[in-house]
Amino acid sequence: MDYRFSSRVFQLQSSAVRDILKLTQGKDMISFAGGLPAEELFPVKALREAADRVFTAGPGVLQYGVTEGYMPLREQLCERMAAKQMKVQPHQMILTTGSQQAIDLLVGVLTEPGDVILVEKPTYLAGLQVFALHGLKVIAAESDEHGIIPEDAERLIREHRPKLLYAVPTFGNPTGRVWSLERRQRLLALCKQNQVPVIEDDPYGDIKFVDQEQFPTLFSLEGQAEKGTVFYTSTFSKTVAPALRTGWMIGDSGVIAMTAKAKQAADIHSSTMDQQILSQLLSGFDLDVHIRLIAKSYGERMNEMHELLKRQSLQNVTWEKPKGGMFLWLELPEGLDSEALLRCAVQKGVAFVPGSSFYANHPKRNTARLNYTYNTGARTQQGVERFVEAIGEFTARS
Amino acid sequence: MDYRFSSRVFQLQSSAVRDILKLTQGKDMISFAGGLPAEELFPVKALREAADRVFTAGPGVLQYGVTEGYMPLREQLCERMAAKQMKVQPHQMILTTGSQQAIDLLVGVLTEPGDVILVEKPTYLAGLQVFALHGLKVIAAESDEHGIIPEDAERLIREHRPKLLYAVPTFGNPTGRVWSLERRQRLLALCKQNQVPVIEDDPYGDIKFVDQEQFPTLFSLEGQAEKGTVFYTSTFSKTVAPALRTGWMIGDSGVIAMTAKAKQAADIHSSTMDQQILSQLLSGFDLDVHIRLIAKSYGERMNEMHELLKRQSLQNVTWEKPKGGMFLWLELPEGLDSEALLRCAVQKGVAFVPGSSFYANHPKRNTARLNYTYNTGARTQQGVERFVEAIGEFTARS
Repeated sequence: MDYRFSSRVFQLQSSAVRDILKLTQGKDMISFAGGLPAEELFPVKALREAADRVFTAGPGVLQYGVTEGYMPLREQLCERMAAKQMKVQPHQMILTTGSQQAIDLLVGVLTEPGDVILVEKPTYLAGLQVFALHGLKVIAAESDEHGIIPEDAERLIREHRPKLLYAVPTFGNPTGRVWSLERRQRLLALCKQNQVPVIEDDPYGDIKFVDQEQFPTLFSLEGQAEKGTVFYTSTFSKTVAPALRTGWMIGDSGVIAMTAKAKQAADIHSSTMDQQILSQLLSGFDLDVHIRLIAKSYGERMNEMHELLKRQSLQNVTWEKPKGGMFLWLELPEGLDSEALLRCAVQKGVAFVPGSSFYANHPKRNTARLNYTYNTGARTQQGVERFVEAIGEFTARS
Repeated sequence: MDYRFSSRVFQLQSSAVRDILKLTQGKDMISFAGGLPAEELFPVKALREAADRVFTAGPGVLQYGVTEGYMPLREQLCERMAAKQMKVQPHQMILTTGSQQAIDLLVGVLTEPGDVILVEKPTYLAGLQVFALHGLKVIAAESDEHGIIPEDAERLIREHRPKLLYAVPTFGNPTGRVWSLERRQRLLALCKQNQVPVIEDDPYGDIKFVDQEQFPTLFSLEGQAEKGTVFYTSTFSKTVAPALRTGWMIGDSGVIAMTAKAKQAADIHSSTMDQQILSQLLSGFDLDVHIRLIAKSYGERMNEMHELLKRQSLQNVTWEKPKGGMFLWLELPEGLDSEALLRCAVQKGVAFVPGSSFYANHPKRNTARLNYTYNTGARTQQGVERFVEAIGEFTARS
């Protein structure tokens, strides 16, 4: 039989990140590509104990659950959200398979194929994939070191009337940038005024290198879930462990209920085993202490990579030193195509993600995303050396 | 802000089953509604040990995994599939969040909004929800005690050129029916000839009351994954436990690869914690012995409910005694609307699913689905008494 694939899926390119991950599973490959958290920091012992406690509650823990997710975990998450000035009730929250699924479901609920979505330039790669699968037209507003540029966003909203704005305001992927408070307030006002709901994707907000610094979420600035503008999503993937695939979204209860309907059709519910393990973990383990430990370690790793790159005095290679998150975003010499650079780098045994992957259109090809959280010490050093060698060879060649 | 919901989601009705599940969580409510497995048969101890073994392998078990699912579990499942004459390799398989997600993803990969899908009449409720969300037009072929009626399916295929056939050939939901070998062969030939891919949904195939009886799957009858007609999906939800949300789909490797792309956008991957627990379970526990135990117990429960109903000598209430699965499908007196009956039954403290939920259109309203796997003994007896009381009152009233 010959299959006829749906046009949207057929066009969908497999994520460059994932393809590279597959390519780079050889032993001597040093990968700065994936957004992988450091395995040695996973709270294995605490999770093992939490899992064991789940089973002591009897066989009911293994039964079907509600689509919205395990209620005790939603209650615990409401408390954690409240500590960040995001006040919600469990019926204003849904648990999902990572925050990725929250984005996918919400887009399905609030858009029709052919609608327009506004994003930052550059933006999250797997977000772009979701928008393509839903048949959306993606428009991208310029951004600088203070975040999205309100004037450009305003112009695009006027011209294209987007149905949604998708953004990662704190430690963006790929740039690591933080929106300034002023930009946050202006964007929020702009979206409120123009009735553009916002997906505020915040997987990295907890990974901040200076603990005292506060970056209020758009959701907290609006201070209103019901009929609110902002749908906030986050995940345990970076703060506990990705294998447990547990994310959440908060916002207007009517939209959450509609999202639950869509989720019912998509997979009935996410793993309640994972949700119960996380609930047990939260009740017997100080996650905030653990998060500070992770953030401290990642800050050191970022500094390590930053110093290693700086020491090389690379001509026309620049980056902003991030205040948190998992990525360094490099601008390479004008004219250097980082996809070609990647092919060269992989031969030398180092991988990264070419910046072009993060643009819906008109990619800035001389950019690259380097992850600094997964490797450490000698491996980071060797990886940077290989990367620099590739750049040198490449620029020499061109 | 006022939200504009996508038209397809807006139209989507919440599943009657799930709504009833929410309604019926009171203590004295006896529910024959949900397709809930018996909790007392969950292999809690073996799963607890399996989970503990997962953690001994070190922190890597908690890292991101591949979209297609945990490779050792795919290999184990390939062996289990081979034992049922379904020969596939791991690249011809994808692990999903329950088989529900496999259906959702495959429909997204092989159809465009506006396409037609052919189903049995009646068919799986949450399947109908998926098809509606994808904007499909559903057409339903008549079925009898031997399964779908080939002549009617053929007529509909000629008239409507469906892009897919969705079916539950073994112990169907809601009817519990088994397609005869002849019907299987004829349907398969028909779909091959007309280039209509088939989703063979088989969550219940293992739950057979006479162990020796063999019901070859459509997939095994075709005997070909590459360029094959049939995409077979099943789940651990009924044989191990639903909370682990692990299903799988097998079929042509190109379609599986495209499904993985769609899954990458939908949720990156399903819980690898659950997949690893199941992999550990399969290596240290005889799942086939456990399945025979479940099937035996469910057969007894089915007989119990069957005898209780029979003893009531209800006028014009008929059902076929199923050979497996989880449901009794009742035809009620002509003119009795089972949705009205449900409202009456719930007041008496018993719930079931009105048959109308299982029809895409032209519902046969005097039908009802009763689950016999969740309750037992006195509770089943009391539930049946309440149900019969409701019928009596209702028919007396009409």
